[in-house]
Amino acid sequence: MNMSNFQTWMQSVQQRMESALADLLPDAALAPDRLHAAMRYAVLGGGKRVRPLLVHAAGELAGASPQRLDRIGCAVELIHAYSLVHDDLPCMDDDVLRRGKPTVHVEYDEATALLVGDALQTLAFQVLADAPLADSHATQLSMVTLLAQASGSRGMAGGQAIDLAAVGQQLSRAELEFMHIHKTGALIRASVLLGAQAGTPLPTAEIEQLDHYAKLIGLLFQVVDDILDAEADTATLGKTAGKDADNDKPTYVSLLGLGEAKQLAEDMLAEARETLAPMGGRSARLEALADYIVHRAF
Amino acid sequence: MNMSNFQTWMQSVQQRMESALADLLPDAALAPDRLHAAMRYAVLGGGKRVRPLLVHAAGELAGASPQRLDRIGCAVELIHAYSLVHDDLPCMDDDVLRRGKPTVHVEYDEATALLVGDALQTLAFQVLADAPLADSHATQLSMVTLLAQASGSRGMAGGQAIDLAAVGQQLSRAELEFMHIHKTGALIRASVLLGAQAGTPLPTAEIEQLDHYAKLIGLLFQVVDDILDAEADTATLGKTAGKDADNDKPTYVSLLGLGEAKQLAEDMLAEARETLAPMGGRSARLEALADYIVHRAF
Repeated sequence: MNMSNFQTWMQSVQQRMESALADLLPDAALAPDRLHAAMRYAVLGGGKRVRPLLVHAAGELAGASPQRLDRIGCAVELIHAYSLVHDDLPCMDDDVLRRGKPTVHVEYDEATALLVGDALQTLAFQVLADAPLADSHATQLSMVTLLAQASGSRGMAGGQAIDLAAVGQQLSRAELEFMHIHKTGALIRASVLLGAQAGTPLPTAEIEQLDHYAKLIGLLFQVVDDILDAEADTATLGKTAGKDADNDKPTYVSLLGLGEAKQLAEDMLAEARETLAPMGGRSARLEALADYIVHRAF
Repeated sequence: MNMSNFQTWMQSVQQRMESALADLLPDAALAPDRLHAAMRYAVLGGGKRVRPLLVHAAGELAGASPQRLDRIGCAVELIHAYSLVHDDLPCMDDDVLRRGKPTVHVEYDEATALLVGDALQTLAFQVLADAPLADSHATQLSMVTLLAQASGSRGMAGGQAIDLAAVGQQLSRAELEFMHIHKTGALIRASVLLGAQAGTPLPTAEIEQLDHYAKLIGLLFQVVDDILDAEADTATLGKTAGKDADNDKPTYVSLLGLGEAKQLAEDMLAEARETLAPMGGRSARLEALADYIVHRAF
């Protein structure tokens, strides 16, 4: 697709999301005001909103309304934001910088950061349940289940636990993949599937194509993250660079080397394109997003 | 109602709940096994299961099936358990003992305790969405919303934030009540309402009676907790006694004195009984539960 059209679309979704998140988060003047201010600090004014972009791209393909997709995008972004706040805590990655700003526990305090993460997770499920987001209530309940499966001990939170256990370990590529399929992949996959479920039911073959695409994108995202972490300096990245190597965490770059990791990213991008091909022009935005994820920095 | 019948019923619900929770929590042999073992450690083998007892008592009144009530009881108990694990962390109450056992971060580690709480919350929402629990999908979606509202920044998590801000402060009785309505009351109220929603729709007047009862019980529970904390020794309580006074936290006992706090509990119990009176024998278990909550130790 035309790249300047894609840029315009991406910026418009990012702006819609900022506004939708600002509306859904409790006002900072409401009690408990410090908690609400910290929740807004954690979520607003930053982030590429990759997961909401995937929600919108997959949802448009299924003919879902932008209003529904904004709301679903908020739910996945709130889960993502909660995981960052908790991941940055001293007992986890102990990071002080996120999206170019002090992390929540640095700007506020640890107890507040803990509660911010807790309350953002809760809000994600509330947002997914308290307004119509699918053509049937049954589908919407299954969306709540899908988000929970992707986020819990057998999804994202489980991936964090595997990541903790992996510090200082030599992992095989299969073990590294298993970790990332949970830690990053599950929520990215859920973003694509939730977007699609908000629209007219798609043929099974297309759901399978979307699911395969989403799994590839989930891993691809992590491979590129590892490359960026190895290459970028802190100013460009907006978070502390080189952390993974410093923390002795296994990455695609430490496992494969930089050149091979880049080749892997290009190969997975080609597979993602091939997976979308049967859907033709309808999947142009998903294809452009895959390209954007891979080439955002190299 | 006959107290030995009530004891039998209570024990049978507690046993059902232990078994339902053991079934719903991921097996400790599943990866990530340390996380799953810690989740089971946090939830199983202890606790009076007050919230599930309220779910069952209110649900029976509305003719809901025990299977549905077990599942709803699990959802609220998982939220309660997550809040205890996070509340015990060093950055919050820094407690080492819970239900007579070392707290999760002492038995495992802080990072695992953080993820245990996160994943228990997620599981609560999954359990409430992924099997039929009400006569319509629309009602079930509203149950997900209700649990989220009761747990989030304007419910339980918000109450924790208010509690943090109150350390070392002199609160008025109105301010103390505002804190507890959020911190403890919201989830107890949700337990009663969720149980009722699993059955045949009740007349509006009865829903209002249940709601008023539930609000009273929520506060009553906290008043009694403050009395127990002031009176009991650590062995009886199964958690560190006298913590609130040590932490310079405002309590009903510090505000009213022990005698007046006990009188307040008796007055609220009388009001709860009066509230249930129009429902006659159908509300006998809710009445017995109120009595149990007040007299469990004095």
